[in-house]
Amino acid sequence: MAPKLQIACAGLGRMGARHALNFHNRTPRAELVAAFTPVQKEVEWAHANLEGVTIYTDYDEMLKHPGLQAVVVATVTTAHAEEAIKAIEAGKHVLCEKPLSTSVEISQSVVDAAVKKPHLKVMCGFSRRFDASYRDAFNRMDNGQIGRPSVFRSQTCDRLDPSGFFVAYAEFSGGIFVDCNIHDIDLALWYFGQDSIVKSVVATGITAVQPELRKHKDVDNGVGIVEFWGGKVAYFYSSRMMAAGQHDMTEVIGTEGKLAINANPTGTLVELHESTGIRREIPHDYYGRFEHAFVTEANEFTAACLDNNTLPFKLTGAVQAVKIGCALQESLNSGQKINFDETGRRLETSRL
Amino acid sequence: MAPKLQIACAGLGRMGARHALNFHNRTPRAELVAAFTPVQKEVEWAHANLEGVTIYTDYDEMLKHPGLQAVVVATVTTAHAEEAIKAIEAGKHVLCEKPLSTSVEISQSVVDAAVKKPHLKVMCGFSRRFDASYRDAFNRMDNGQIGRPSVFRSQTCDRLDPSGFFVAYAEFSGGIFVDCNIHDIDLALWYFGQDSIVKSVVATGITAVQPELRKHKDVDNGVGIVEFWGGKVAYFYSSRMMAAGQHDMTEVIGTEGKLAINANPTGTLVELHESTGIRREIPHDYYGRFEHAFVTEANEFTAACLDNNTLPFKLTGAVQAVKIGCALQESLNSGQKINFDETGRRLETSRL
Amino acid sequence: MAPKLQIACAGLGRMGARHALNFHNRTPRAELVAAFTPVQKEVEWAHANLEGVTIYTDYDEMLKHPGLQAVVVATVTTAHAEEAIKAIEAGKHVLCEKPLSTSVEISQSVVDAAVKKPHLKVMCGFSRRFDASYRDAFNRMDNGQIGRPSVFRSQTCDRLDPSGFFVAYAEFSGGIFVDCNIHDIDLALWYFGQDSIVKSVVATGITAVQPELRKHKDVDNGVGIVEFWGGKVAYFYSSRMMAAGQHDMTEVIGTEGKLAINANPTGTLVELHESTGIRREIPHDYYGRFEHAFVTEANEFTAACLDNNTLPFKLTGAVQAVKIGCALQESLNSGQKINFDETGRRLETSRL
Amino acid sequence: MAPKLQIACAGLGRMGARHALNFHNRTPRAELVAAFTPVQKEVEWAHANLEGVTIYTDYDEMLKHPGLQAVVVATVTTAHAEEAIKAIEAGKHVLCEKPLSTSVEISQSVVDAAVKKPHLKVMCGFSRRFDASYRDAFNRMDNGQIGRPSVFRSQTCDRLDPSGFFVAYAEFSGGIFVDCNIHDIDLALWYFGQDSIVKSVVATGITAVQPELRKHKDVDNGVGIVEFWGGKVAYFYSSRMMAAGQHDMTEVIGTEGKLAINANPTGTLVELHESTGIRREIPHDYYGRFEHAFVTEANEFTAACLDNNTLPFKLTGAVQAVKIGCALQESLNSGQKINFDETGRRLETSRL
Repeated sequence: MAPKLQIACAGLGRMGARHALNFHNRTPRAELVAAFTPVQKEVEWAHANLEGVTIYTDYDEMLKHPGLQAVVVATVTTAHAEEAIKAIEAGKHVLCEKPLSTSVEISQSVVDAAVKKPHLKVMCGFSRRFDASYRDAFNRMDNGQIGRPSVFRSQTCDRLDPSGFFVAYAEFSGGIFVDCNIHDIDLALWYFGQDSIVKSVVATGITAVQPELRKHKDVDNGVGIVEFWGGKVAYFYSSRMMAAGQHDMTEVIGTEGKLAINANPTGTLVELHESTGIRREIPHDYYGRFEHAFVTEANEFTAACLDNNTLPFKLTGAVQAVKIGCALQESLNSGQKINFDETGRRLETSRL
Repeated sequence: MAPKLQIACAGLGRMGARHALNFHNRTPRAELVAAFTPVQKEVEWAHANLEGVTIYTDYDEMLKHPGLQAVVVATVTTAHAEEAIKAIEAGKHVLCEKPLSTSVEISQSVVDAAVKKPHLKVMCGFSRRFDASYRDAFNRMDNGQIGRPSVFRSQTCDRLDPSGFFVAYAEFSGGIFVDCNIHDIDLALWYFGQDSIVKSVVATGITAVQPELRKHKDVDNGVGIVEFWGGKVAYFYSSRMMAAGQHDMTEVIGTEGKLAINANPTGTLVELHESTGIRREIPHDYYGRFEHAFVTEANEFTAACLDNNTLPFKLTGAVQAVKIGCALQESLNSGQKINFDETGRRLETSRL
Repeated sequence: MAPKLQIACAGLGRMGARHALNFHNRTPRAELVAAFTPVQKEVEWAHANLEGVTIYTDYDEMLKHPGLQAVVVATVTTAHAEEAIKAIEAGKHVLCEKPLSTSVEISQSVVDAAVKKPHLKVMCGFSRRFDASYRDAFNRMDNGQIGRPSVFRSQTCDRLDPSGFFVAYAEFSGGIFVDCNIHDIDLALWYFGQDSIVKSVVATGITAVQPELRKHKDVDNGVGIVEFWGGKVAYFYSSRMMAAGQHDMTEVIGTEGKLAINANPTGTLVELHESTGIRREIPHDYYGRFEHAFVTEANEFTAACLDNNTLPFKLTGAVQAVKIGCALQESLNSGQKINFDETGRRLETSRL
Repeated sequence: MAPKLQIACAGLGRMGARHALNFHNRTPRAELVAAFTPVQKEVEWAHANLEGVTIYTDYDEMLKHPGLQAVVVATVTTAHAEEAIKAIEAGKHVLCEKPLSTSVEISQSVVDAAVKKPHLKVMCGFSRRFDASYRDAFNRMDNGQIGRPSVFRSQTCDRLDPSGFFVAYAEFSGGIFVDCNIHDIDLALWYFGQDSIVKSVVATGITAVQPELRKHKDVDNGVGIVEFWGGKVAYFYSSRMMAAGQHDMTEVIGTEGKLAINANPTGTLVELHESTGIRREIPHDYYGRFEHAFVTEANEFTAACLDNNTLPFKLTGAVQAVKIGCALQESLNSGQKINFDETGRRLETSRL
């Protein structure tokens, strides 16, 4: 019997539970051997749903689990970096949920730790990189079907959650550009090339439904433009107030064509004809949209660890993405456009 | 000033009023000079809406209108043939609403009258022949984009009208296959070729919402198959109970491709994202779907009369279509499949 | 550790290999312990891809595999019934690919065998029953969203395979109505109710691309109508010559609305804007369309065996579906409509 | 006979010819009595296509045409304002193509002239205001179907014209934000309210296919953000390099829903299924998309003149739109964000 990757899951909240189940049930070459959560309710959930998995309430203890080879970090964002670094230092492969941190410096510290252990696979969980549609579009672009990609539009739009959850969440999320558009930024870097250098960043936003977000310097609808040196431009939209559900979409516009990913969102393949017209439903949250991408992510990360394959993208990109996200968030709050020179060094914002 | 076609409109009911307005306002080379209706309310409507047009309550009088060159016949179906023949005999061009008659023999009598006046333009108003989408699809087929057309699917589906109108209407409509699918049959003859010969006809149907239709030997949902000699087959659906609106659609399936016309019905280009999903409305009736086709029909008929152009299709096709429609209706009621030989002669339906 | 269902896979051809992999890798509660194939090349494939699974070249030997609890039968259609019956008699749960047999009598013999072992789970693999979209549509219908379902339209349309494969295949497939439309028939029975009684059956078809199919009494495009007692009608289309790919779709038309499943086929969520317009690709084969349904099928069958749950549908339905499919195929070849009385007993087809 | 509006058309180029034909043939209550063009080829076209219309090669002479009541100004943009003012001073109603001018001051001078003749109807031809889809969306928003409109996204994207036409055109067009996005800006003012006050403007752009545009300080792809006081934000995209055709679309995002207009562009209702997938074509230019809106515009302008109705929108909006367009174009070229106070007064751009 080929040995399976012995993996642990840190965090069993909304996202952690999904990762744990995916590694437990839908990743044939991995074996989920351990999980960590400090939350009693989640411990109980684990006992009921993760048969045969050792549950820890102390992260450091979990790292000592015999034979452990890899860790998926899916705790709260503020804990990502520290736990990832500890795992790296303990010699474990790491799949860390995005973002590594809402701070550029802290994100970089994860990269620094990983650099010291080049035999380890350390990946930031940009799930859209594993989505079949994004991959199909990338391959078409790569094959020249749209000429030279020049304009990139992407949005991450969540369904309206009237519970107020996002207000509390905003205290630690890093803001809408870091929390939501980080995905779109990462996609732009993927499609435009990871070596793209930002020329300018500007953003604005409003609080249409949750004015209390302002106390965390956040908004519920944000628009930003990121210019790259070399004649490329990306623009982003993020929102917390979509009525119909999650609508994440992207357009890659080239000199000879355009690729649209999810311009027509849909859930199942069902359309209902009723007296008010024709209606279809769309996924209510990002997991509804990207569930299969998460499963692919788990399987490909596992294969990379076991077979010593190159990961599909570099960890440094996660720092780039946070850097751009933070600059957008800063511009949102300062009202200033931020400029960078051709080496990527930030210029003084304003001059007379 | 180039002379305009002096035209009159017989009938100012639902469809007649539309024809009258189209010739009055949207057909630059025609002048609506007269209209006929025996209905007082419609006379009043005409005085308010058809400025400068002489209104007659006697059809024969209208035919004597000085300078009259053409007549559009848009009265009740039972009057079509007689009025068309009178107009032909009076030397007028005729655009007759479909069907010429619900009887094959009476339909043929219009053709016979027209044959005697070869200089006149006599056309049956198969409006879909003038629709931009159907023409686009036909041209693509004609250009070989789908190989050899082999299977034809077409439906005419009306919005549910809970008023019971269709029950009364069924007394004279000829039945759902003659009234609704006549359009689809005509399209099949257009796309497959006007010289196609029917091999067999079979139909069935149900009364899902209007059981009283049975007293007129009609149904509210009908399905039929028409086989043609030479390896072609068409199948049809008609319904009176669509919730969302009018959904007339067609597929032409060839050996190398397929053309779908209105598979995705839509009204305006607006989509509404709301808490129950994404919704669009569709036209509520056939005029909402085919308004522009009717305007094109008016203009092309006018041009054909003025310039002595060949009409886009032959009058004999209208008899063919009624013949097939009547055979479907007969099959619906007899439960028997009806067969024809390679010359189109009906074979004895097998009976014990 | 909860015990897993010990399952074997009979047949490792196109479909068998997929079932084997699904039970091996994507069905957490099952363990694929054995597989059978008489084909040397497939044995080799199994050694490379089914690690830890015992491979048999004799079906009877495989049935004796220690601890075996269940068998998935995915060999050629002609072997389905015999192998299923043997497995049942050996006390194994059975998931048998559709159809049980192309013969009604032989299909019934599987049911008869299963009846004698009521503790066993015996299911015919109608994969669309496990598809998320079909289930969503069914639930909406069941919740009354379209009123009373009355008209059912469904098609199974394969991509054109110019290799001629389907000609050879037609010798044993039972014909296009039994091979393709069997799915649509099963769906009609699901949506209309498993107790629906057929009133009449009529079919026609053509050989547009593969005239040699006639030697097996088959066609490459078939159209059929099935009338049910109680005012319901279903009509079906099947084709072997779709240019763009697999297009299986269904409409359920009720008195207050309509459900359309896959009216707008799509593969990924990508649209390509290019100089010739906007283009999207669709799945090339039925597995591309229904892959997730097969995975769900494997998991639900496994759960039913382990937990002694009721299967989602009855085995007798598989006989009903074959019976209707065979009647359509017979009508295609005889040119006769076939009628049944209200108890489902066939009436004499009228003959001179 | 009710008197018809005696109207003249200034300019018979691409757009002028369309206006002339629309007033000549498709505006029943108007009579095109005169037209002006200094171009000999256009004079010839007019003699062939505008029967009965007096053709002038001198604009001032045309204004003296006996009985003339109204003028549609459709010459080159640089002539719009002067000709409009002359017509106003001569007591004619004016429908002036957009923009009044690429200069805010000159645009304002048209408004000033119109103010002095309050009995005249003076309208800037924002054709999208007359489009059935935009009107449908506006009514839905106005009826509260999406809550409070908060974010507005709109794009005007032309098909790639490899002839280089747009480079020469850019010398006088005012730039892509004034030429293309002016429509989107006008729509934003319509949907957000004509009294909306701009808070900030920022833009960027690239020359992906036509680097020579830089000599006219223009780009072929532009992105801009316009913030309004009161918590509203609009963002715009314009492009000259769409492969598939014209794709003008808009989203209005409210606190309870979203309206999308033309998210799924389409030409006819035909879809072609071929070996490379499913394809549809879209209009190649804006007239293909908005033809019916131009006809509606002609008819409603005519009705407003004849019946002394209020025009559907105010002339001052045309100055607002140009002002915003010019600010976007300035920001594109300066690289600076431009801010405005709550009264709309421009603030110093940069501060230390």
